[in-house]
Parts: sequence; C-alpha cells; structure tokens
Amino acid sequence: MNPAQTIAQQFLQQYYNTLMTNKMGLIQFYTDASHMTYGGQQHDGLKQINEKLESLAFQKIAYKIDDMDVQPGALENSLFIFVTGSLQMDDAEAYKFSQSFQILPNGQGGLYVHNDIFRLVY
Amino acid sequence: MNPAQTIAQQFLQQYYNTLMTNKMGLIQFYTDASHMTYGGQQHDGLKQINEKLESLAFQKIAYKIDDMDVQPGALENSLFIFVTGSLQMDDAEAYKFSQSFQILPNGQGGLYVHNDIFRLVY
Repeated sequence: MNPAQTIAQQFLQQYYNTLMTNKMGLIQFYTDASHMTYGGQQHDGLKQINEKLESLAFQKIAYKIDDMDVQPGALENSLFIFVTGSLQMDDAEAYKFSQSFQILPNGQGGLYVHNDIFRLVY
Repeated sequence: MNPAQTIAQQFLQQYYNTLMTNKMGLIQFYTDASHMTYGGQQHDGLKQINEKLESLAFQKIAYKIDDMDVQPGALENSLFIFVTGSLQMDDAEAYKFSQSFQILPNGQGGLYVHNDIFRLVY
C-alpha cells in the first residue's frame, strides 16, 4: 500500500469502528466546515451533523468494507476516498452501500471530514 | 435546485452524453492534474486517462442516473459530486454503479475533473 492508502485505511477503520460502537462519537471527525449527505439529505456543520447522528435509530450496526479507493484530494495532504460495502442494521437484511469522503488537514496535525456522501445502492 | 445542483447536473449530463456518444471525447473533462480510478486501477494525467479510454472495449454503453448528490468541494467554486445509477454495455445485463467526482475551476471559466472514482456495485 502507498502512504495515501495507509492513511485512508486507518481513517476508515477508526470511522466505522466509532460508528459501530459509539455513534455520537462520530462527531469528532467533523467540523463546522463539514458537509454530510445521507440518503439525499444534506447536513452542514457540527450542529446539523450532530442532530443527524442523534436521529439514527438503529440499536446496532455492522459495516463490512468490500473495496476502498483513494486519490490525492484538491489540497495538499488531502484525500479523496471512495468505499463500497455492505451494512446490517439490527436484525434487518444486509444492504449494499457506497460512500465517498474528502478528508482535509485540520491544522493540528490531523484530518477532518470535509465531504461525506452516503447512499444505499439497490 | 440550488446553483451547485444545477452546475452538477449540467456537468453530469455533458459527461455521460459524451461517454455514450464519443468516449474518446471524454478526455476534454480532464487535465494533467486529474485522477481517474476505474475498478480499482488508478490513472493519473492526460496520457494515462487517454489510454484507459482507448481500452474501453464496449461498442455502445447506456447510462441511467438514479440519484445525484452535490456538496461544496475543498476549494472555492469546486464541487464534490456523488452519483448512483445503472449502466448497460452492448447487450449485456445492466449493472448498478456508483461514481464520485470532484470538479475544480480550470482557470478559464470552466471546470475540470480533478477526482473521478467509479465502481460497479454487486
């Protein structure tokens, strides 16, 4: 794996592990500059993203990543990431999903999610 | 639709129409700063992207867009776009796909594709 792939894989592992174990903790990946679109609804900034996380009604969720692609983003040290996989909420059937991120340097040596778009794929 | 959605929709219409009618013409959307990843293989810059376009073996292809999401990208006047839909090559069965773009100003009043990641979703 090249360095970008290693960073992207570490990011995704932290991101989905947080979503599976402590969904409200996911807010740590976002800032007021972030955009999150789930199922066609866009949420901008920490307040709206936090409200969206609160509204997620599952008791448990399991993510399985099938493929991950990563490219250099638009800014230095930014990454453009694309994920396909499947997820299972509570005891429902599994769904395929695709999700795309752009992660940018946060000015403190870390990265934050600037763009996040998620869709179930039927 | 807000202005970003209008721009994204016009871009996608031009992009997929070109792909369906004149695949080599698709190179006009890219520059040497562009990255294109198809099925896990990354192609960087005009030469590699042109070679990838030449290698596409279909005689005809039909795209149908199901959903399009768009967010502000990392730079002013840039867009982060996510598409799900289906495509049919020649007389094969239809496949679901997801594709994500980041389009940036080209300095000449237009936009170019900086990031492009495409995956069939099984």
